[in-house]
Amino acid sequence: MSVLVVGSTALDSIITPKRQNPRLLGGSASHAGVAASFFAPVRLVGVVGDDFPRRYLALYRRHGIDLAGLQIAPGKTFHWEGQYEVNMNNRRTLKTELGVFESFFPALPSAYRQTPYVLLANIAPLLQHHVLDQMQRPKFVIADTMDLWLNTALAEVLRLLRRVDAVVLNDSEARQLTREDNVITAASRIHRLGPKYVLVKKGEHGSLLSGPGGMFLCPAYPLDRVVDPTGAGDSFVGGLIGYLAGARGRLEANLRRAMVYGSVVAAFCCEGFGLTRTAKVTRRDIEARAMRLKDLVRF
Amino acid sequence: MSVLVVGSTALDSIITPKRQNPRLLGGSASHAGVAASFFAPVRLVGVVGDDFPRRYLALYRRHGIDLAGLQIAPGKTFHWEGQYEVNMNNRRTLKTELGVFESFFPALPSAYRQTPYVLLANIAPLLQHHVLDQMQRPKFVIADTMDLWLNTALAEVLRLLRRVDAVVLNDSEARQLTREDNVITAASRIHRLGPKYVLVKKGEHGSLLSGPGGMFLCPAYPLDRVVDPTGAGDSFVGGLIGYLAGARGRLEANLRRAMVYGSVVAAFCCEGFGLTRTAKVTRRDIEARAMRLKDLVRF
Repeated sequence: MSVLVVGSTALDSIITPKRQNPRLLGGSASHAGVAASFFAPVRLVGVVGDDFPRRYLALYRRHGIDLAGLQIAPGKTFHWEGQYEVNMNNRRTLKTELGVFESFFPALPSAYRQTPYVLLANIAPLLQHHVLDQMQRPKFVIADTMDLWLNTALAEVLRLLRRVDAVVLNDSEARQLTREDNVITAASRIHRLGPKYVLVKKGEHGSLLSGPGGMFLCPAYPLDRVVDPTGAGDSFVGGLIGYLAGARGRLEANLRRAMVYGSVVAAFCCEGFGLTRTAKVTRRDIEARAMRLKDLVRF
Repeated sequence: MSVLVVGSTALDSIITPKRQNPRLLGGSASHAGVAASFFAPVRLVGVVGDDFPRRYLALYRRHGIDLAGLQIAPGKTFHWEGQYEVNMNNRRTLKTELGVFESFFPALPSAYRQTPYVLLANIAPLLQHHVLDQMQRPKFVIADTMDLWLNTALAEVLRLLRRVDAVVLNDSEARQLTREDNVITAASRIHRLGPKYVLVKKGEHGSLLSGPGGMFLCPAYPLDRVVDPTGAGDSFVGGLIGYLAGARGRLEANLRRAMVYGSVVAAFCCEGFGLTRTAKVTRRDIEARAMRLKDLVRF
C-alpha cells in the first residue's frame, strides 16, 4: 500500500568541523520519503522554489516517489543552514530562509486523498492539519513534530495529537511536552493527549514504543562514525511507515519490526551528508543490517 | 561456583530532593556482593570499622555471603555523603571519610585464593592488584573502576587492564580513558589495552558488550521511577559475575544473559535507597523481570 508524506522539502547547508556542504537535498519530507520508498510507493506533498536543482527531482524519481503533490512555486526553496560541533551532538541553526514555504498551502491531488498510510513529517502543525482535513479515512496516521512547534504552536500540536494514531518525538521533546523527566512516564502521559502509539526517539540510544500491546525497546544500529545526523529522525519515521505500508499482518507486530527498519535507515542516513549515503542504499543493505541488529540484541 | 568480590564496604548518607538517608549500607562490594548472591555463593573482601552496624553484617549473612575476608578494624567505617539533584542524573559528593579504608590491605583467607570468579569492584587499583596477586589462576576476572582512578592512578589502572579478562566502565569513563567520543570506537580501543571483554554501562540506556564473539546491546530494564541510583553500576557487575559463576555452558553465550541479569538487579537497586530494595528481592522477582526484558526487545 502507498504512503503519503507531507513535510519540508529543503536545501540544507551543513557545516561540520571537517567540511562545508552547501545546498544538499534536505527537509523532513525528503528524508522520510526516500526512507519510506525502500518499502512502499511514496506520494510526496511539499513545495520547492524554481531554483530547486533538477538532479534532486531526479533523485526523488529514482526512488519511485510520486511528485504529483510537489508544488514548484516561483521563488526560492526553503533553505536551512546549520553547524555541528566536534562531537556531532550539538547543532546550531545559522540561518533559516523560508522562501516559498512562507505561503505554502498543501492542496492534495485527488488521487492522494485515499492513501492508506499518512506521515505528517515535521512541518508547521497547521499544515499537518490541512493535509489531514483532505484525507479520506486513512488507515494509519503518524505525526512528527519538533521543539519549535511545542514552543510556538502548542495548541495546534495538541489538537493534532487528538487526530492521529501515533506520534513520534525525541526524548527532550517528550519531556518538554509533559514536564516529566522520566521518559517512560512521559510516554504514558502523551497517550492521554490522544495517540494510541507513542514513539520516543533517543538518538544513538535507540527508541521506545508505547502502545496497547505494551512497550518495545528498539535498539539503534551502532555506528563507529557519524558523518551527519541531519535527517536521521525523519529517516527513522519514514522507514517505519514505509515498512508498515509494505507489510502484511497485524499492525502491532509489524510496528516493532517497522521501528527496527526505521532505525537501520536512520543509521545509513548518519553515515553521509544529507541524503548522499541513504540514496545509495539498497533493500538488501537494509535487510543485512536488520539481521545484524537482531543478532546484536539476542540473548 | 563461587565469586570473590573485593571493593568498598561503606556507609552511605544519601540526600535526594525528597529525603535524607543517613548511614545506609553501601560501597561497591556491598552492592555487588548482594547482587551476585542471588546466583552464586559470594566471598567478600573488605574492611569496616568497629562502628559498623551489626544489622548490616546480618544482611550480608542472610544473602549467604562468606565474611571470612571482611576485616573489622578499630576505627570508623568508610563514609560517603552525596546529594542528588531533582532529575537524579547529577550527583555531588559532599563528604568522603576514608576511615579504616585508609590503611586497608586486603589479605585473603587461604580458602579464598582458588575462587574461580573474581570481581574487582570499584576501589583503588592498587588494592585490586593486591587481591589479584594472591589469587591462584582464577577462571574469570572482571575489573570495575571509576573516573577518580583514571584521574589519580591511571598507570595502575592501565597495568590492571593487562591482567583481567574483562573491564566494565561507564560511557563517560570509556571516553575519558580513550579520548574517543564514539563509544563503539572507544570500546574497541580499550581491547588494545588488554581486556578480551569490554563492557560499557550507559545508565538508563543500557550497556554494551564488545568481545571476540562480537557486540551485544543490553537493554536497561525500564523504570518509571528512580528512587536512588547509587550502587546501580555495582549491582550490574555483581549480578553479572554472579550469573556467570552460577551458569553452565559457554562463557560467551552466558555473558549476554549475565548482562541482562545484571541489568535487572541494577534496576531493583534504583527502586530503593541504598540496598533497601535489593535486599528484599527474590530470585523469582529477578526471573520475572528478565523474562519481561526479553519480551521488551523481541521483534
